Amino acid sequence: MLEDKNQERTSLEKLGEFGLIDHLTQNFQIQNESTLKGIGDDAAILDFGDKKAVVTTDLLIEGIHFDLSYMPLKHLGYKAVMVNLSDVYAMNAQATQITVSIAASNRFPLEALEELYAGILLATKTYGVDLIGGDTTSSQTGLLISITALGEASEEKITYRDGAKPNDLLVVTGDLGGAYLGLQVLEREKEVFKVNPNNQPDLEPYSYIVERQLKPEARKDMVKLLNDLNVKPTAMIDISDGLSSEILHLCKNSKVGCNLFEEKIPLDPTVISACEEFKLDSTTVALNGGEDYELLFTIDQSDFDRIKGNPNLTVIGHMTDIADGAHLISRANTKIPLTAQGWNSFDPPK
Amino acid sequence: MLEDKNQERTSLEKLGEFGLIDHLTQNFQIQNESTLKGIGDDAAILDFGDKKAVVTTDLLIEGIHFDLSYMPLKHLGYKAVMVNLSDVYAMNAQATQITVSIAASNRFPLEALEELYAGILLATKTYGVDLIGGDTTSSQTGLLISITALGEASEEKITYRDGAKPNDLLVVTGDLGGAYLGLQVLEREKEVFKVNPNNQPDLEPYSYIVERQLKPEARKDMVKLLNDLNVKPTAMIDISDGLSSEILHLCKNSKVGCNLFEEKIPLDPTVISACEEFKLDSTTVALNGGEDYELLFTIDQSDFDRIKGNPNLTVIGHMTDIADGAHLISRANTKIPLTAQGWNSFDPPK
Repeated sequence: MLEDKNQERTSLEKLGEFGLIDHLTQNFQIQNESTLKGIGDDAAILDFGDKKAVVTTDLLIEGIHFDLSYMPLKHLGYKAVMVNLSDVYAMNAQATQITVSIAASNRFPLEALEELYAGILLATKTYGVDLIGGDTTSSQTGLLISITALGEASEEKITYRDGAKPNDLLVVTGDLGGAYLGLQVLEREKEVFKVNPNNQPDLEPYSYIVERQLKPEARKDMVKLLNDLNVKPTAMIDISDGLSSEILHLCKNSKVGCNLFEEKIPLDPTVISACEEFKLDSTTVALNGGEDYELLFTIDQSDFDRIKGNPNLTVIGHMTDIADGAHLISRANTKIPLTAQGWNSFDPPK
Repeated sequence: MLEDKNQERTSLEKLGEFGLIDHLTQNFQIQNESTLKGIGDDAAILDFGDKKAVVTTDLLIEGIHFDLSYMPLKHLGYKAVMVNLSDVYAMNAQATQITVSIAASNRFPLEALEELYAGILLATKTYGVDLIGGDTTSSQTGLLISITALGEASEEKITYRDGAKPNDLLVVTGDLGGAYLGLQVLEREKEVFKVNPNNQPDLEPYSYIVERQLKPEARKDMVKLLNDLNVKPTAMIDISDGLSSEILHLCKNSKVGCNLFEEKIPLDPTVISACEEFKLDSTTVALNGGEDYELLFTIDQSDFDRIKGNPNLTVIGHMTDIADGAHLISRANTKIPLTAQGWNSFDPPK
């Protein structure tokens, strides 16, 4: 489970910066017509024609955003791309290109970065995005990944956070809380491993939630589904910091309030059983857990017939007048103000 | 000279991630029509119309790329933007947008990040680029800045590294070696300061080279000049790692050789005198020093009349058949093979 210390090691100094980039990116092929020029010049060249370009960027830092004692590097590479593509899909756009910059200390041999890039390569192939550039440097401590993702959309498709109106329905894709609980399982196994390194953890009962943590998928399929259903959300955001935080973003940007119904929050059965095991409240986990990378959006009520009954989409509430505030309506029918208790990298470590 | 320990300190936890982004970016105004949507959604939206988009990214890490004991944070912010814009100009394009991601340890109070963003703001205003997004997180050690720059150019203007032909003239903007020597002066003063903290260094005689190190300017003006002169380079690159390394990039990408004439390399008088003081060979400094952020390009011989006599442009050599290789023709008229000894972040510390 922890890093294999007997792996082959090729030091990065041997290759140098340019050799390293060439080596790590040799298997990446251009997949988008809009990529006129990828890696290999001062900058990449893109052609979005009459489409609009979408740009987003995220930084992932060892010890803050990930723990390599249970996060395999290939999964990390994959997840780092997903985190960024999720933001592109949250604009109702198609992801088309990424740049990837990494900084690695001398603890990381070439083979480790190859694993990381194998995950990045898988993500680019699965999602049809092109790697078009990046920077590779050494760091004094740990591993750091900075990704910028680009996408394209026609102007009428682009969905901002500020278009929700009172009475719009609040809809979420997939289910929530799994990624956070997967992290709890992995943290627990790490502690067990420290005490007894020969213990082989049985993660099978937790495979769904562990996969939600280690190998999340950005919801490209949901952008396609909405397009197929001919539904254009009035506002949309991706769920990276927890449902509560994202609802408050939509409310603030759209200048509306919200009623969220506790009983409607979609939870996988594994999430419910893991919550019991860990003595956690499943609603709290869904509201504040984060890293689910589902899409949260609002639609006009007249679009309800187009989405109802779809197993991927759950109506969890409706928007209200801004004066009404943002509330959770509990199973006991009490009204609790929503607060953002989502994950914050500047909070002191717990 | 070293960090002022008595400055006001507001901890980053107080603001949280979203509050911090809002606070740091409140003074940034949109300057480009192509910026449809900047900060404040999952992603920014850009409209390049019938122009092509240019994308480049760079990562700057404390202890590897900069030393805060002599690099003021405002200068660092400015320089971090310049490093990226320089790559856009090296495509013969106009820089239009940047994203800025930073990671900072709890050693940095809010006031430090405000200084950093003051430098970024000055750069965006001076160069007319829009800040459109970014990510802000904590780090376990030190400060890290990841910038992605976007630009636009018409397809016929874009200049790659691979267009140089035998007999093309090799031209450089400005002068070389200053940034490296400025670093030597600052490193020396740092050592003096360690021994005697009350010593006030007199950097006046070195102001040109210290400024080349601390506050470099990307050559937007040279892209305009080439356009005004109606000269389109056949190939172009910016000088970040040293003249020698960049010439070899042009040769490799364009499949040509090169004769570089030592006596033609443009050097500022301050560079020559500092080289004498530090007992360094000025040619070696220009070839391998790096961080000058000048532009290096090739032009067809027929364009020579348009550039000759311009004080900003110096013809330093000409391209040859690939079989002839890349050489420095010394003042003594000996032919020395060019090798890339430029700065490499993966080299073991010297």
